[in-house]
Formats: sequence, structure tokens, C-alpha cells
Amino acid sequence: MQGQQQQQAYDRGITIFSPDGRLYQVEYAREAVKRGTASIGVRTQDGVVLAVDKRVPSPLLEDSSVEKIHRADNHIGIASAGHVADARQLIDFARRQTQVNQLRYGEPIGVETLTKEVTDHIQQYTQVGGARPFGVALIVGGIDNGEPRLFETDPSGTPYEWKALAVGADRGDLQEYLEENYDNEADLDGGIALALDALASVNDGSLLPNEVGLATIDVETEQFEQFDYETIETHLDENDLLGSEDEEEDEDEDDE
Amino acid sequence: MQGQQQQQAYDRGITIFSPDGRLYQVEYAREAVKRGTASIGVRTQDGVVLAVDKRVPSPLLEDSSVEKIHRADNHIGIASAGHVADARQLIDFARRQTQVNQLRYGEPIGVETLTKEVTDHIQQYTQVGGARPFGVALIVGGIDNGEPRLFETDPSGTPYEWKALAVGADRGDLQEYLEENYDNEADLDGGIALALDALASVNDGSLLPNEVGLATIDVETEQFEQFDYETIETHLDENDLLGSEDEEEDEDEDDE
Amino acid sequence: MQGQQQQQAYDRGITIFSPDGRLYQVEYAREAVKRGTASIGVRTQDGVVLAVDKRVPSPLLEDSSVEKIHRADNHIGIASAGHVADARQLIDFARRQTQVNQLRYGEPIGVETLTKEVTDHIQQYTQVGGARPFGVALIVGGIDNGEPRLFETDPSGTPYEWKALAVGADRGDLQEYLEENYDNEADLDGGIALALDALASVNDGSLLPNEVGLATIDVETEQFEQFDYETIETHLDENDLLGSEDEEEDEDEDDE
Amino acid sequence: MQGQQQQQAYDRGITIFSPDGRLYQVEYAREAVKRGTASIGVRTQDGVVLAVDKRVPSPLLEDSSVEKIHRADNHIGIASAGHVADARQLIDFARRQTQVNQLRYGEPIGVETLTKEVTDHIQQYTQVGGARPFGVALIVGGIDNGEPRLFETDPSGTPYEWKALAVGADRGDLQEYLEENYDNEADLDGGIALALDALASVNDGSLLPNEVGLATIDVETEQFEQFDYETIETHLDENDLLGSEDEEEDEDEDDE
Amino acid sequence: MQGQQQQQAYDRGITIFSPDGRLYQVEYAREAVKRGTASIGVRTQDGVVLAVDKRVPSPLLEDSSVEKIHRADNHIGIASAGHVADARQLIDFARRQTQVNQLRYGEPIGVETLTKEVTDHIQQYTQVGGARPFGVALIVGGIDNGEPRLFETDPSGTPYEWKALAVGADRGDLQEYLEENYDNEADLDGGIALALDALASVNDGSLLPNEVGLATIDVETEQFEQFDYETIETHLDENDLLGSEDEEEDEDEDDE
Amino acid sequence: MQGQQQQQAYDRGITIFSPDGRLYQVEYAREAVKRGTASIGVRTQDGVVLAVDKRVPSPLLEDSSVEKIHRADNHIGIASAGHVADARQLIDFARRQTQVNQLRYGEPIGVETLTKEVTDHIQQYTQVGGARPFGVALIVGGIDNGEPRLFETDPSGTPYEWKALAVGADRGDLQEYLEENYDNEADLDGGIALALDALASVNDGSLLPNEVGLATIDVETEQFEQFDYETIETHLDENDLLGSEDEEEDEDEDDE
Amino acid sequence: MQGQQQQQAYDRGITIFSPDGRLYQVEYAREAVKRGTASIGVRTQDGVVLAVDKRVPSPLLEDSSVEKIHRADNHIGIASAGHVADARQLIDFARRQTQVNQLRYGEPIGVETLTKEVTDHIQQYTQVGGARPFGVALIVGGIDNGEPRLFETDPSGTPYEWKALAVGADRGDLQEYLEENYDNEADLDGGIALALDALASVNDGSLLPNEVGLATIDVETEQFEQFDYETIETHLDENDLLGSEDEEEDEDEDDE
Repeated sequence: MQGQQQQQAYDRGITIFSPDGRLYQVEYAREAVKRGTASIGVRTQDGVVLAVDKRVPSPLLEDSSVEKIHRADNHIGIASAGHVADARQLIDFARRQTQVNQLRYGEPIGVETLTKEVTDHIQQYTQVGGARPFGVALIVGGIDNGEPRLFETDPSGTPYEWKALAVGADRGDLQEYLEENYDNEADLDGGIALALDALASVNDGSLLPNEVGLATIDVETEQFEQFDYETIETHLDENDLLGSEDEEEDEDEDDE
Repeated sequence: MQGQQQQQAYDRGITIFSPDGRLYQVEYAREAVKRGTASIGVRTQDGVVLAVDKRVPSPLLEDSSVEKIHRADNHIGIASAGHVADARQLIDFARRQTQVNQLRYGEPIGVETLTKEVTDHIQQYTQVGGARPFGVALIVGGIDNGEPRLFETDPSGTPYEWKALAVGADRGDLQEYLEENYDNEADLDGGIALALDALASVNDGSLLPNEVGLATIDVETEQFEQFDYETIETHLDENDLLGSEDEEEDEDEDDE
Repeated sequence: MQGQQQQQAYDRGITIFSPDGRLYQVEYAREAVKRGTASIGVRTQDGVVLAVDKRVPSPLLEDSSVEKIHRADNHIGIASAGHVADARQLIDFARRQTQVNQLRYGEPIGVETLTKEVTDHIQQYTQVGGARPFGVALIVGGIDNGEPRLFETDPSGTPYEWKALAVGADRGDLQEYLEENYDNEADLDGGIALALDALASVNDGSLLPNEVGLATIDVETEQFEQFDYETIETHLDENDLLGSEDEEEDEDEDDE
Repeated sequence: MQGQQQQQAYDRGITIFSPDGRLYQVEYAREAVKRGTASIGVRTQDGVVLAVDKRVPSPLLEDSSVEKIHRADNHIGIASAGHVADARQLIDFARRQTQVNQLRYGEPIGVETLTKEVTDHIQQYTQVGGARPFGVALIVGGIDNGEPRLFETDPSGTPYEWKALAVGADRGDLQEYLEENYDNEADLDGGIALALDALASVNDGSLLPNEVGLATIDVETEQFEQFDYETIETHLDENDLLGSEDEEEDEDEDDE
Repeated sequence: MQGQQQQQAYDRGITIFSPDGRLYQVEYAREAVKRGTASIGVRTQDGVVLAVDKRVPSPLLEDSSVEKIHRADNHIGIASAGHVADARQLIDFARRQTQVNQLRYGEPIGVETLTKEVTDHIQQYTQVGGARPFGVALIVGGIDNGEPRLFETDPSGTPYEWKALAVGADRGDLQEYLEENYDNEADLDGGIALALDALASVNDGSLLPNEVGLATIDVETEQFEQFDYETIETHLDENDLLGSEDEEEDEDEDDE
Repeated sequence: MQGQQQQQAYDRGITIFSPDGRLYQVEYAREAVKRGTASIGVRTQDGVVLAVDKRVPSPLLEDSSVEKIHRADNHIGIASAGHVADARQLIDFARRQTQVNQLRYGEPIGVETLTKEVTDHIQQYTQVGGARPFGVALIVGGIDNGEPRLFETDPSGTPYEWKALAVGADRGDLQEYLEENYDNEADLDGGIALALDALASVNDGSLLPNEVGLATIDVETEQFEQFDYETIETHLDENDLLGSEDEEEDEDEDDE
Repeated sequence: MQGQQQQQAYDRGITIFSPDGRLYQVEYAREAVKRGTASIGVRTQDGVVLAVDKRVPSPLLEDSSVEKIHRADNHIGIASAGHVADARQLIDFARRQTQVNQLRYGEPIGVETLTKEVTDHIQQYTQVGGARPFGVALIVGGIDNGEPRLFETDPSGTPYEWKALAVGADRGDLQEYLEENYDNEADLDGGIALALDALASVNDGSLLPNEVGLATIDVETEQFEQFDYETIETHLDENDLLGSEDEEEDEDEDDE
């Protein structure tokens, strides 16, 4: 009770520390991320896999309307989770950075460089007053000098590099699943299988093609490629994860 | 009780997250949308239908004064619901964007592009301090490369693409009606019928021509067309929805 | 009691929504309008009538000092109700707009165009921080392409078009009176009679010439014309509304 | 009790409305006016009279130090009441306006024009945040096209035109006295007599020459003229109002 | 009790009026003036006398360090009381004004003109937000066109002209002393005697030369002249006010 | 209890002092530093050693992702502890300063100079409003004119020079360990041993190579050099600190 | 209790007066000065002595790291006490002023001039909003035209000139010691002895050379000179103040 009151005193102002050194607004922005459906990134020897849960709350809502996988550059894709409108701002920022880099240096931007430009942008919203933090986490995947790279940006503005990660709803369970099943030797198909398995693990074991978004950045082609309905269906089928439409009832998380 | 007090602590500041990651000012702006009379959009194979409830609180108020359907460009119409003065701001913003696009690229703006420029504009009012969010939702309908498109902008700044949707008062009942009765194969007249049926379903089963606004953007002509009193009367009559003036008593929602 | 406390929490900040989607500062600005004496507009086939209650609290105060009818352009008049100093700001804004339009397009501004430029200006004061809303309502009357037009601007920045309306004190009773007695076929004299009858109906049935302001914008001449004492006296006399000076006691509303 | 608490909630912020549509800061600024000693203006057929109570709290304070009558232009004088430092700001503003008008149009500014430029300036301080309203009322007297004019500016920024008025301490009693004794036919000497009578009426029936300021703007000369000690003494004597020095004890109001 | 709580509600914000029309921050700034040691100004036929109490709280503090008499121009001196750092700001402002006047008009600034430029500067800090008022009062003495002038600036920004005045600690007693003993016919030496007598009257009847500052502006020379230790000692001796060092114990006021 | 409430009154505003002269926001920023894993700096006769605890909370998180040792210039390295995103801002600031110095003066920046430019930057965030302090401490090591130098920047913006220091979690225990075991005569290997011993002392006596970051700046080469996995493993082995992977369970601190 | 609550109401805002005319934030900044270790200045006939307590809280912290004596110009030294990072800002400001003066006037800045430029800078932070006062006091010593001068700047922005003074911890006891033992006739060595005696008097009667900083500005050379360890040791020894290392236990004040 005492602790709760003390917390309330510090979490209303955006740019101040609590007595134990925490930034509550940033932590609440992390809660905003958890309110979004899950997104997963898996790095394999052959490239990076991005997979997202894109269940829609109404059958009249276009699946394509739930944009959680974005092309940032030819060789970089970004998956997001959390506050959708905030995600769009960061994606726009990232795309401008790729263009600026191309214009200024005549070459594509590095995955790590791009990630850190985004996180530095995010950090400003946690220190300088007059605005709130971004309520979104991004998974940035791509190829740097022939190497697959996979990064996360969180609402505090910290960049992390991962072998595989999940953000959004059920992050705890998903991350645990990824840790137990990640295989350093896997190829792209293995990465896709792992990502879909993980998503299905928190979804009654099966998925519908229209409820999933999938993209890869291949080390060979260095091209971001987003999968269509049929290809997703094939992958689900190959991994015995293809659900039937009837089950599509529950919708307990929503991107806002 | 406890929960209510906790909520009060976070909903007065515009740009901050609550502990569970919500932006209360945005959610209250959604309530402002619900205080406006309903607007409906229906996408058909032959084009997009916009239909709005425009009942007026006084017989001396000009029906035309209730502007809920707006021409954004030759090929794009917008229906609004919620805070009227806010809607005007966004419509003006949208119209400027169509002109800028025409000037800069020499071609009409895409429906999706326009929608996202509007939602990005809306998002700024939810993150940066010194202003409140827009208390309005827009339905943006038009033709992109020969394809009918139907979008929604909500107060958070999220763009959604729909087959059919309702915003404003009775959204829950209207959206349910649309989901149960939407027909993928319908033509424009079918779309008009669905939209009017839905509006009538929450209005004692009938409508008066002056209480309804109706517009279409046809795939063939790619022209936004707003209907006059007689045409609306004909459509109501054809769909057995034409009410008699006597019933026009209740006015339980009001745009403010 | 509970409800009252909840309200208090949201009505002190200018630019925020209450949990039920209302903007209390705008609603309180509407109360400021009601604190002013009444103004009435009536649209007839032959032009627009503006009539205002301009009772003064002291016999030493010049009647002409109570400026509630303003010439905006040759063909447009504006009646105001509410906070007098705010009204002057909006009238000045409107006059500048008429001049800008004349300079830019070489023709007089439209009544609807002018009204919407004013309401858009008003809206800014309800969304952006650092200022309060305008505590005034305007009745804008004039001739557009030979057609009489009558608009209202309210503190939210919403434009309304009316056949006849009242703003300020006793709006409820006056509007009811107008609804019951409005005649679509009336000429200018009929409009004047209706307006004066309405004003007298909340004023013990009679009026003094110096307590009333009256103006018309005639469809023929397209000229705003403000009436002098004698003309007003004649109209009151013709309509059996001419009071005697003795009754001039009560002064229950005051423009501030 | 309830009402009082409710009031407290709305009167601390400068730019917001109370639930009943009032601007408390403006009303409190009016109280600041009442804390100043009285000033009176009287319009006669032959010109305008300004008379002020300028009693000083200490015999060592120079009478001339209490500046309550100011020359704004050759043909315009201003009397003030309330917060002295604020009055100086507005007088300076008024003088700059007279000069700007002379430079821009090559002719002296009108009394009404000047008054409204001042009130528009005052209004800004009641709507835009970051400053408080002016705690002063001005009486602006002068000659417009051969006609004597007498205006008031109040802290809300409203301009009033008067035949005769009082501002500052005892406004109620003074205004009542003026209403009962005002004579439309009076000449300048009659106006001076009325103003001095009124001041004496709230001051035990007599006045000392050094405690009164007096000025006229004559229709013939169109010149603002401030009276010296001897002339004031003569006027007091002629009107049987000349007090003796002994009575000069009480000092119950003070300009601050 | 009730009254005290009400006061607390209005005295924390710098730029707002209390319900009775007072500006508490300005009144508190006046308290800051009273916390400083006293300063006195006396106008005589032959010039102006400035005298200040400059007792120091430590014998190691240089007497000259307590700067309470300042040369503003050749013919103008200023004595201050209150918040020392604030005084320095205003003195600097005054000096810049004297230079600007000399440059712009080629002649020395008038004493009254300078005083009013300072008070207008002070007023801004009482009306516009973002700063607090100046916690200092100035006594401005000098020669205007061969006439000795003596002004006061107070924290509200009001200019007063005096024959003789005291500011700072014991103002009440000192001003009473001045009123009782002021002689219109006195010469400079008489003015010095009055000022020192007054200071001594609240200091056990005697003064030490190092505890007093003394300056004159002579009508003949029109030169500001500050007195040295010996001259002050002589004046104290001549007026039988010279104390012995032993008594120098109490230090009950302090400039901060 | 009393004390705790008093504290709460002063720790929410960033730029104000508490009654006992403390800046709570700065002290809370120090708590943010303690929430980060430890970093150690050791100065030896032959150069500077930087060692950091970089345990990761998930086996899928790339060790390299935890960037706690940064190259600022050829001859300067920086270790950080605390809020990671804040650290990145300061590192970027430091790197820009090194480049500016090189451009402006044609020579590398001094270690002390760089440290003080960083601390001056930090101080601004503790005095000027509108932002919070930096929640990070830096250890800046390098070679100045052939001399090894070791500095700390803390959240108040104070620069300290050390022989050896620890920041972050367990600072108390680590600093005590360093004080007891520091040897003025040690060479670089001795410094590395001391740093690793200290880290192991709060980590069950052993470390894993991937959980440790290690870098040196050698007096001879004047080059910042960061160690790879194998070299770290060798050093751990040589100092009998090499742990086995199994123990890698607990993760009680986390950089945020 | 009552008094305490009243105080709390006024000490949180930086730029407002309390009802008794105090600026609490400035008084709290003075408390921040007291939290720093002591600094002493002594003016002698032959020059100025600056002496500071620079005990360090850890044996690994470099003594030189505690910078409390600063060279401002060839002929001016500054000792500080209080918030270290704030001191650095003021020292930097002072140094820039010395350079500006040299560039602008071609001669070294005066000690008094420099002090007042610093205090005017400090004052701004006590009157204008958006920042807190400086939590530091400076002792500025130097030679003006062959005369030794010794000034203090305090957090209110007031300049004081002293014969001898102490700031920081134990100011009360130290200042009392200086008052009792100050000798107007002392030479530089006498001044050094007095300063060290005073420091030792609050430190168990002895000092360690590394715990003391010492500097002089000699009237002859007009050069600021800071003493090294050996010279300090000699002075301590000559004055029988040289402590033994063993006693170096207590550390009850800390610069923060």
C-alpha cells in the first residue's frame, strides 16, 4: 500500500527518476508494447526471419490493414509490436535514415547503424520534456556485410542484438519457447519453422494463414521479402500448424 | 473504487501512459467520437459507399448544415463522426495534402497514402504536449488504381482498412449488423442497401431522406458523387426504409 | 456527488477530454454566451434579419455603446452574444478575412466561406494549449449569389446553418418560439416581426426602441443596413410591441 | 460553502472559464480597480470633464506624484483608477497608438478608435496565457469631429460609451449620484460642478484643492487642459465644496 | 483561519489576482524590501540627500562592500533597500538608460524620466509570467532643470515623488519621524541632519561613521557626490549623533 | 515518517533544491546507475584497465549487444554503468568532442579535457528545466602526455580522478575490494588481475569469458584495445577465475 | 507545525517570494554550499591567501581531483565550496569574462568587476524561471591596481568584499575563528598561517598536506600561485599543524 502510493508520486511525470532510479513512463510504455500482438525475429545462418501475429478483431477488417512487418530498405525489414501509430512514426524515421545514408555515403545503411539511429531518436523522448515515450518495440533484421543481424529497439531507447526474440503479448512464454528450441545451425526454413511454432505455441497449437505475417532477409540475395497468403499457408502446412477457420474466435489482445 | 482512483491519476495529462500502457486522453477522444451520430462506409466490387446519419436537433437547422460527408478529391470522399470542429480541421488537412500531391507529382493522391498522411498528423497530437488529440474518426473511401479502397482513421492515429465499417454512435450494433450482412459480391446498389439497412436498424427500422447523407465513389467513373434528397428518397423507398415525418421525434445523440 | 467530483477533475484544463468525451472548457464558454443578452437571426425569402436585445444597465450608458450588430462587409452582418471583448476579436478577424478575400480574389467573400474561416479560427483555441476558448456566439447573415444565408458560430468552432435562431440568454425559450412561429414564406417585414415578437416574448411582451438593435441584409440590394431609433420604433409600433419607458426596470442579464 | 469551494477551483488560472461561464481573474482585476481612489468622467454639450480623487497617504508625498489624469493626445485625456503601474502601461500603449495614427494617416486618432485599440490590447491579456489581466480601468475623453465623447475601458477589454461615469472606490455610490444629477443640457462648468459634487458626496461633503485632479477637453478648442491648484480651488469655492486642511485625516483607499 | 487558507490559495502564483484584487507576490516582494536595512531620501531647496544604514554583520566584511548608494549619472544618485542582487540589476538597467538617453538625445536623462523607465521595467515582472518581481525599492534623487527631485520605485512598479521618504527596515517609524521633522526651508546641511537624525532615532540615538552611507546631489553643481568616512564623521559629530564603537553589537536586519 | 513526507515534497521537480540543499533527481539518477551491472577502472603504471560485468539476461541475447566499453578516441576508452540509452547519448557526445578537438587544434583531445566537457554537458541537465539528469556513470580512461589517467563522470556532472574505481551494482563492495588490494606498482596485467578479482568477488569467485568485457589503454602504444573472448578466457584462467557454464544462473541486476 | 506547513507552501517554486519576503530556493542553495567542505580566503597587506579543505572520501581518489582552487586569470584566483558541478560552470563563466575583457579593452579584468559579472549571472538564476539557483559560493581573490582584493559570491547573487572569510562546512565556527584572530598587519605568511590555523581548528588541530589546497596572489608579482604538496607540508610544519596519516579517518562532509 505504502509502496503503491510512493509509485504513484513518480509515474506521472515523463522525465523524472523515481527514488529507486526507475523511469516509470518508460516502463508503462513497455506495457503498451505488451498490449500489442506478438512479433518474432529469428536469426539463422542463411538470413533473418520476421514473423508476426496479425489477428484482426473483425472479419470486415482487411488483414493487410494490420501492418506489422515493414520494408525499411532493400536489405532490412522491421517488425513492430505495440502502439500502431507510434510504430508508423518510427518506421518513417527509419526509412528517412536509410535514404539519408544512401544520399550521403552512396551505400546502403548498416543494420546496426540504423538500429542505433532509431534508438537514439527514441531516447530523446525519454529525457527531454514535452512529449511521451514511444509505446512500441521494433525488431530490425537485415544483412550487414553478408552477415545476418537481428536487433531490438525498446521504449527506453536501448538497442539489443539477438539470435531470436519475441516482443509484444506473451513475450515471456514466447521468449522461453525460443530459448528452448533455438538451433544455431538452422537454415531459413528452420528459422521460419521455429518462429511459427512459437507463435502457435501460445495460440492453441495452430495458426491461420491470414493471421500471420512472415518475411525473410536472405543472406544470398540480401533482399527483404514478404510472404503472401499461399506461401504462408504452405509453411504452416509443412509444419503441421495449419488451423481451420472455425477456431478463429478468441481475440484477447489488440493493437491500439 | 481503487481502480477508478488509479485511473483518475493518469487521464488528465495528455501525453502520458497509464501503468497498464494506455493513453487515456486518446480513449476519451474515442468517447467524443461515440457522441457523434453514426457514419458508415461499405466497399463493394463496383466502388465505395459512404452513408451518414445527419438528423438535426431543430427543424430550423438546415440539413445541409450537418456536413458529415466531404469531397477530398475527385476520387476520394470522407465521412466523419465525432467532434465537428475537429473534423473540419482534418478535412482541411486532407484537402491540402491532395493538392500538394497533385502539384508535386502531377497525379492524384492515393487513398491509402492520403489516409496515412492524415493518421500521422493525428498521431502527433497524441505524443507531443501542448494540444489535445482530435475527437473525431474519419472514413476515407476512394479508388486506387481502379480498386475501391475504404480506410478508417481513429483518434490514436492508427489507419485501418475495412470492407465495411461504422463509426460514431451505436458503433457496436452497427458493426455487428455489417459483419452479419456484408456480401463480398455486392454491387454499389447492394452496398447502399446494406448501409441504409444498418442505419435503419438502430433507428426503428426506417429513415427520412433529410436525415441521411449518401455518397459513392464509382470504380468506373472514379468520381466522388454525393446524392440529393430525391435520390436518397428513392433508395430508401426501394429498400422499404422510407419513414414518415411524424416519427421524427427522438434525438438522443448530438454532434457538438 | 460522485459525478460532480469527477467533473471537477476534467474541467480545469483547457485542452483535455473528460472520460465521456466532453470538453468542459468549451461547455463553460457556452455558459458565457448565455450570460449575454439575446441575439436573433431570421432568414426570409427576401433577406436576413438580425435583431438583438441591447438593454443597458445604466441610463448614463450610451445605447450605441452596446455593439451587438456589426457590419462585416457590404453584404454581411454579424450579431453577437456573450463575452463582449471576445466578440470584438472575432469581428475584427472576420473583417480582415473579408478584406483578404477581396484583395486575393477580387470579389466579396461568401457568407459560408467567412463563417467557416471564423469557426476554424475558434477551433484552434479549443485544441491548442495556452489560451482559453472564445466565450461568444456569432450569427452571420448575408447574401450568397442572390440567396439569403444565416449561420451560427459556437464556442466549439462548429458552423451551423439556420432558418432562424437565437443565441444568448433565454436561448431555449426563444428558439422554441422561433420554431413554433417560423414561416417559410415570410418577407423581410415578416422576419422582423418574428424576431421582435420573439424578443418581446421573453420581455413581458413589449420592447423599447433603444433596447433593441435591428439590421437587415436585403436580397435585392445585397446591402447590410442597420436601423435607427425611429425605424425601430415604427416596427415595434406596427407589431404592437412598443413598451413605455416606465417598465424599464429589470436588468437580469449583463454582457460582461 | 459548497459554492465557495467550487469558486476556488476556477479562479486561480487566468485563462479558463468557470462552469457558469465567468472569468474569475477578470473579476478579481475589477476588484483591483475598486482598490484605487475614484475617477469620474462627465460629458457635456461643450466638452468632456475628467475629475479624480488624488488624496495622498503621506504629507511628504508630492501631490503631483499621484498621476491619475493623463494627456493622450492634444484632443484626448485619460483618467485612470486601480493598479497604478498597470495604468502607466496602458497610457503608454495609448500614446503610442496616437502617434502611429498620426504617422500612418496624417490625422489625429479618433476617441472611439483609440479606446477600442486599448480594449483589444486588454482583451489579449484575458485570453492568452502567460500573463495576468490589467488591474485598471480607464476613462477616455475627447473630441471626435466636434462631438464630445466619453468612453470606459474595463479589465475584460470591453469598451463602453457613457454620458457620465465613475470608476474605482465607491463606484456604486458615485454612479448613483451621477445618474440622479446628470443634466443633458449642462455646459463645461456644469459638468465640473457635477463631478466635484459627486466626489465630495463620498468625502464628507467637501474637498481640498490638492486632493483633486481636474481636466477638460473643450469642444471649441479641442484641447486637453489640466487645471492647476488655484483653478481647482476656485471651482471648489464656487461650488461650496472647499474644505479646510484640518479635516484631511482619513485615507481609507490607496492606489497600490 | 478561513481567511488565511484563502490567502494561501492566491499567493503562490506570480501573475494572478486574489479575489480582493491584490497581487500577493508583489506584496511579498515588499516584505523583502523590509528585510533590508533602511535607506532615506530628503529633498531640500539646495539639493537632494541620500542616507543609508550600512551596518555589516561581520567586522571582517568591508564596509564598502555594502553598496546601497549608487551613482546613476552625473546628476542622479540612487539609494536602494531590499534584495541586494535585485538592486544591482535595476541599477544596471538605470545606468544603461542614462547612456541610451545621452546617445539618443545628446543630453542627460531627466530624473523623472529615468524613474519611470525603471518602474515600467519593474511592472513587466509583475504581469508577465516566468519570473518573480524585484524584491527591492529604489530612491532616485537628482536635479531636473535646476530643480531637486526625489522619487521612489516600489516592487509593483509604481513611481512616487517625495519630499522625504524612507524605505527598508523600520520604514513606518522612519517615515513618521520624517513627517514630523521635515522642514520645507532646509538647506542641504539641514537635509543631512534630518536624514541622520532619523536613522539614529531607530538606532539608540547614535551612529558610527562606517555604518552610514551619505551622498548629495547639489542644485548648484548638479553633481552626485558620495561622502567619505571623515566627512560623515564630521556630520555625525556636528549633529551629536556620533556613537562609540563599543555599542556596535546588535545586528537585527540583514540584506540578503 | 515526517522525514519521508518532507522528502517527497522536493524530489519530483528536477531543478530544485531540498531544504537541506540536496538535488533529489540527481540522487535518484545515481540509483539508476546502481541498477546497472558493475564497471571497473584500474590505473597502473603501464596504462589503464577497463573491465565490465556484461552478463546477459537471455542466452539468445548477443553478448556483444551489451556495449559497456566504448572507444572514444585512439587513446581513450570509456566504460559505462546505468541507463544504457543515456550512456549512448554521452558516448556520442564524447566522440563528437574528440573530433571537434582534432579538427580545431589538430591534435588528440586530452583525457581530462574530454571528461570535463562531458561533465559540463551533464551538469546542464541538472540545472536547466525541461529534461531529466542522465542516469549513467562513465569511467573515462586514457593516456595524457604519456601518463595514464582515469576519470569518473557522475550524474551530478562532477568529474573525479581515480587510481581505481567501480560504478554500478555492488559499488560499495567493489570499491572496498579495490581499496584493499590496489597496488601502486602494478603493471597492466596486475591491473587486469585486480579488476577481474574484484568482479569475481561479488560473483561467487568466478567469471565466464562471455560475461566480462575487458579493454586497456597502454602507455607505450597509446592505443585503446578491446579484448576478445579467447584473451579474456586466458586472463581468467591465469587468475584462477574461470567459471564453468553451469553456474550461469542468477541474473539479479539488469541494465535497462 | 503551522509555521512548517506554511514554509512548505513557498519553497518548491524557484522564483517566488514567501509571505515574509524570502526566496527559499536561494536559502536551500546556501544549504548546498554548507554541504561542501570549507574554503577560506584571507586578505593581507602583501596579497591574498586562498586555502581549502580537500579531504577525499576514498584513498583511491586522486587528491588533485578535488578542484576547489581555480586560476581565473594571471592575477585572480577563485576558491569554491558547495555543488562541484555548479562551481565548474561559474568558473568557466568567470574565465570567459576575463578573456572577453582582455579582448575588448586590452587589459586584465578587475577583481571587483569580475566578481560582479559573476554575481549578476547568478542573480538571473534566482529571478527568471526554468532553472534552479547555483548551489555554490565562490571566493574571488586578486590584485586590483596593486591592491589585494577579496570577494565572495553567494547563491543569491550578492557580491561581498571581505578581509577574511570562510564558506562551506563549519562556516560559523571558521568565520568566528577568523574574526578573533585576523591581523590587519599580517603579511602573506601570516595570512597562510591564519587560514591553516582556522582549517585545523575544526579538524582536531592538525592537517595532512594532501588534504589541503593553498594558493596566493602576491601584490608584488600580481601572479596567482598554487602550492604543491611539499610547500604545503612545510607551511603546516612551520605552524605546528602537520598531522600524521593515521588520524585520517573521519569524513563527515562531502562535495557532491
